Amino acid sequence: MEVEVLQDRLAKALNAVSRVAASTKAGLPILSNVLLRAEKGHLVLMATNMELATVQYVTAEIKNEGTITVPAKLLAEFVSALPRETVTLKVNNDKMTISTSKYKSTMNGILADDYPELPKVDVDNSVGFKINVDIFKEALNEVIIAASNDTTRPALTGVYFNTFEGALYIAATDGYRLADKRFVEDVKSEIKAIVPATTLQEVLRLVSEGMDEVEVQISDALICFRMGEIEVTSKLIDASFPEYRALIPKNISLNLELDKAELQRMTKVAALFARSSGGSITCEALADAGTFSVSAVASELGENSSSMEVEVASDAKVTLNSRYLLDALNAAKDTHILFGISGKLDPVVLKNAQTDDYTHIIMPLKS
Amino acid sequence: MEVEVLQDRLAKALNAVSRVAASTKAGLPILSNVLLRAEKGHLVLMATNMELATVQYVTAEIKNEGTITVPAKLLAEFVSALPRETVTLKVNNDKMTISTSKYKSTMNGILADDYPELPKVDVDNSVGFKINVDIFKEALNEVIIAASNDTTRPALTGVYFNTFEGALYIAATDGYRLADKRFVEDVKSEIKAIVPATTLQEVLRLVSEGMDEVEVQISDALICFRMGEIEVTSKLIDASFPEYRALIPKNISLNLELDKAELQRMTKVAALFARSSGGSITCEALADAGTFSVSAVASELGENSSSMEVEVASDAKVTLNSRYLLDALNAAKDTHILFGISGKLDPVVLKNAQTDDYTHIIMPLKS
Repeated sequence: MEVEVLQDRLAKALNAVSRVAASTKAGLPILSNVLLRAEKGHLVLMATNMELATVQYVTAEIKNEGTITVPAKLLAEFVSALPRETVTLKVNNDKMTISTSKYKSTMNGILADDYPELPKVDVDNSVGFKINVDIFKEALNEVIIAASNDTTRPALTGVYFNTFEGALYIAATDGYRLADKRFVEDVKSEIKAIVPATTLQEVLRLVSEGMDEVEVQISDALICFRMGEIEVTSKLIDASFPEYRALIPKNISLNLELDKAELQRMTKVAALFARSSGGSITCEALADAGTFSVSAVASELGENSSSMEVEVASDAKVTLNSRYLLDALNAAKDTHILFGISGKLDPVVLKNAQTDDYTHIIMPLKS
Repeated sequence: MEVEVLQDRLAKALNAVSRVAASTKAGLPILSNVLLRAEKGHLVLMATNMELATVQYVTAEIKNEGTITVPAKLLAEFVSALPRETVTLKVNNDKMTISTSKYKSTMNGILADDYPELPKVDVDNSVGFKINVDIFKEALNEVIIAASNDTTRPALTGVYFNTFEGALYIAATDGYRLADKRFVEDVKSEIKAIVPATTLQEVLRLVSEGMDEVEVQISDALICFRMGEIEVTSKLIDASFPEYRALIPKNISLNLELDKAELQRMTKVAALFARSSGGSITCEALADAGTFSVSAVASELGENSSSMEVEVASDAKVTLNSRYLLDALNAAKDTHILFGISGKLDPVVLKNAQTDDYTHIIMPLKS
């Protein structure tokens, strides 16, 4: 293999794929390598952690086709540090030489024959759709926050892609909160797929400026995202997702329209005092006073309360985890939100005030 | 105590002093508090970790004089999160209420009577000088990098302020490298004071835009820095500093004038390959080839070398720790540096090519 490629292009591509190689928990040393393959017209870079594989196509001048794997992190850092000029990659057995006019390195690699096969989505037995990059990013960011880190319940560590009444929804829940978003209208085929949240985080990191749309392809066991020159393929989570629609309250006693920025500040301030009580803050609406207040008590340090004026039809009170409320407010996109309270033990339902495609539910804390 | 003060002023001052309170290792709970004292015309904030004390004066409307201590971190975070309006502080016994139009908190404090006395520099028995803020920052940043973290040799954890031939020098060494800077010209009195590097780092953090000069006052056991509305007083390190001037080589076999940015890049690249060998890189000057090269070998990963063209009078070679060389290059301010090599076992001497007030010495590694 012998390739000439521009330093900035190669550096950008290596930074994108090398993170996947670095994330591997499996013991195989070759997984911390990046695979390079010179084909006609371009250089292909690949990395996998066995759950997820990233492929990146780089425009390059191919002098000789061929393939090798070399340490991903070292190569990425080395190429990033080089000056902006043409870089020559040349393979000799299991060694690759990387050189510019003044810099020269030889890296010990591992032959590509030993590289584990990456999974591929079977296009004939899959459902596909395209989505605008900005809508894709916004929707995933709104939902992914509710996914769990607890690997003992695998289904909850993913985002559930599911069709309902002709549209594709994405949802996530960690048992304490739930986020649901209408994602794509008019999807004919049925989809029920749990995509690892870690995969989606990786995809979100790889989305960069100048990309128009994301092409998604879902088969029985795999999902593939194609954005510009980058492709991410991931295993799906093999589990069943809870029947979450039943958990969304149909009737809400009191729906308050609140200024989001103001509520964020009030929650942030109360959260400072809520540290010693596991983030517990109390939200209270008072009809006579016409106020919505947030308060917290830190037995040792002191206490805090703040309030805003708002039209309130009936009194209501609920205790929430301040972190969950802040996450939900940060994800909501409108300037005002609908804050739905029912009883002290009922979940709080948050929606954007102007758009109705996003629902965020937070379970109350016992106070 | 009752005080009205603008949120942004109070937040800025609290951020400056609360770090000192948070840094305390001593077990006294009151040390993690900030002391507030309302005097005529201003509010004084104070924090100490028993080694170092910061005092900050804030313009405020004093309704009632008085004093209290409250948790520093909580107060700083709380005030930072408040909207930009007037904040009222009101003390009732050992509680302080902080309020704005919409926000209200009560913090449990500790009476100021229990607050440990801060050391004060005795102005009559001290030496003082003033120095331009930019020169002060630059000089400290050049020297502080060579100070040690090893508390078993207290003298080396400080920066040595010492007069020599009518000028004040500052120097630091960790035994592997040494930095020396001519700091202030024409200092009449003799100064020999070891200032903790941690104190100087704190002072550097507190220097902000809009400050003109730093007033320094040194007594037998204390040093005080005054910058704008902030005062930092610190204990000196009670130890004797090595006779470092004897360690600076007088005769250097080969003095190369090198492009600093280029050498930084070459060192950074070699450092990637030097990780497995404790940062060991080899610098070599070749007279016939007219080159200066930097190389590193990572037995497992591969090897690297890079070179630049430069006029070389005689061959020379030395092995250095890449981190020390990078630190020295980052501190040097000119675009070109003088790189002085003698034998393989002699220290390397780095100086700025245009200015002669800074000397940085790096001990070679045995290769």
